[in-house]
Amino acid sequence: MTVDTAELARRLIDGDRRTLARSITLVESTRADRRAEAAALLDAVLPATGGSVRVGISGTPGAGKSTFVDELGSRLTATGHRVAVLAVDPSSRRSGGSIMGDKTRMERLARDPAAFIRPSPSGGTLGGVARRTREAAFLCEAAGFDVVLIETVGVGQSETVVADMVDCFVLLAAPGGGDELQGIKRGIMELADVIVVNKADGDLLPAAQRAVADHRHAAHLMRPKHPGWTVPVLAVSALEGTGIDEVWTEVERFEAHLRDGGGLDRLRSEQAVAWMWAEMQERLLDAFRRDERVAKRLADAEAAVRAGRLSPTTAAHELLAAHGLADRDED
Amino acid sequence: MTVDTAELARRLIDGDRRTLARSITLVESTRADRRAEAAALLDAVLPATGGSVRVGISGTPGAGKSTFVDELGSRLTATGHRVAVLAVDPSSRRSGGSIMGDKTRMERLARDPAAFIRPSPSGGTLGGVARRTREAAFLCEAAGFDVVLIETVGVGQSETVVADMVDCFVLLAAPGGGDELQGIKRGIMELADVIVVNKADGDLLPAAQRAVADHRHAAHLMRPKHPGWTVPVLAVSALEGTGIDEVWTEVERFEAHLRDGGGLDRLRSEQAVAWMWAEMQERLLDAFRRDERVAKRLADAEAAVRAGRLSPTTAAHELLAAHGLADRDED
Repeated sequence: MTVDTAELARRLIDGDRRTLARSITLVESTRADRRAEAAALLDAVLPATGGSVRVGISGTPGAGKSTFVDELGSRLTATGHRVAVLAVDPSSRRSGGSIMGDKTRMERLARDPAAFIRPSPSGGTLGGVARRTREAAFLCEAAGFDVVLIETVGVGQSETVVADMVDCFVLLAAPGGGDELQGIKRGIMELADVIVVNKADGDLLPAAQRAVADHRHAAHLMRPKHPGWTVPVLAVSALEGTGIDEVWTEVERFEAHLRDGGGLDRLRSEQAVAWMWAEMQERLLDAFRRDERVAKRLADAEAAVRAGRLSPTTAAHELLAAHGLADRDED
Repeated sequence: MTVDTAELARRLIDGDRRTLARSITLVESTRADRRAEAAALLDAVLPATGGSVRVGISGTPGAGKSTFVDELGSRLTATGHRVAVLAVDPSSRRSGGSIMGDKTRMERLARDPAAFIRPSPSGGTLGGVARRTREAAFLCEAAGFDVVLIETVGVGQSETVVADMVDCFVLLAAPGGGDELQGIKRGIMELADVIVVNKADGDLLPAAQRAVADHRHAAHLMRPKHPGWTVPVLAVSALEGTGIDEVWTEVERFEAHLRDGGGLDRLRSEQAVAWMWAEMQERLLDAFRRDERVAKRLADAEAAVRAGRLSPTTAAHELLAAHGLADRDED
């Protein structure tokens, strides 16, 4: 470890905001040498991590997520918490930046000295964005933030990667008009530990109440993610400020439920190991795709398989053989 | 292609049952040389595949799957179909065989000349079982079977792999007593294209009807897997023989819905390409795990990550470096 990294680690654990920002920039670097420094920094502060409540917040488009996070975050800092807000948005471009984690949309939190907001890392693969966000979350914890909120919108598999890096996954949606919720992707309902129906005010109040009733009913038809936890469904109005405290109460109740019996440690351990494997799998596949011998055959192989002219097994074996991997007997 | 493979292919396409059984045994082999022959056979018959309705049937324990498949299959052969029944059961052992695809539990179908029942391939990894089952399905199609039913029970990810190799995924469950269905794993409800509540007879009839009503209601709260398809929920009694025809009517309606607009071809093409990538990914990860340099470090690395002593990124990089994969700049 260079002297620089040790110093960076010291200041980070001291809670210095500028150091936190610099450190996150470091882990976001795509250069191999910077990433080695980032890895050294993370190793140095690892013992100081783990001390936050990690909450994922997935907001469907139109759900009012920025207003909700601004409201929730402000209440948390008002009661003495230090709140970090990160984001996973694989659609963000380097030059444009992400809409999420956009300080102009979280007006109070952006000015709050006990809060720290960081836009999503830019572009690349979802796996790359996920890695950088996990690492940023660790850095925030090392710097003393005791609540880490990780936002996402419904892009591709981004909800799944966020669910894999948090303790509690909160789904935020607006009423659709009937009793359905707007824009919930298939599979996302079952990721949620808490469901929040926003915009329970004005004209939408009756629809919000219907949606809450229906989703409470549906929630008990499903086997829970965690034994003994029935997913609560709450109505809030981020605009009017109602129901927000109740959401946090549910998050805390969930954390306590998980902690009871060692479930939180188990969850975080499993997430860490899964992350290790995800990293290795991604790099192996990446090296395979970049292999010149594979790359020049890949498009044709895919087209032939897609058209039913080539069996997937044969295609796979030919590409692997080109990469130097011979067939072997299975166990 | 050896003369043997060409002859095998000819007899298979002719519809010879013994050849089909021999061919499936060939694709189930773990020997690298036999698998090369199997691949050659599949390539030879590939143009003769694709001509069946592929239906996955996932039955939770106690759902009465064998009786249901026996009843459904018998009605299909009585109306002129040729029905193959395969199974994905990763828990089956080489010596013991699988409970599923057990001919003693499907009495009529086991004696039916227009039906072909094959137990799940044994043991190994779920990916290996999945590959063999897909290939067996192709062989059945080449041999002229126009309905292929692939059973699974709720073991690990077996429902997901079956959903990835069929057109229509049918979830079969028994009533729980309230309005819930017994034993539905999280995530499985959203895989289903058709939900069948079995045992709608005798004492369980009221519970079955409640379960149907509730799941119909819940089904429309979710965004469908396929645009325009609301998951139908039906009550049946495989024992009394009621509701079975209606299930097949729904399967046919689903196929027609998919076919309309080219959705079926698209689905099968995507499945084939995904299969190719799954094969490559599994082999790459397998070669990595077997690398002596990785194997001797892996257990310690996992334990350290699990205990929070080593960051997942650092652990991944160390193991990849041991495998010979250097860090590189990202895009």
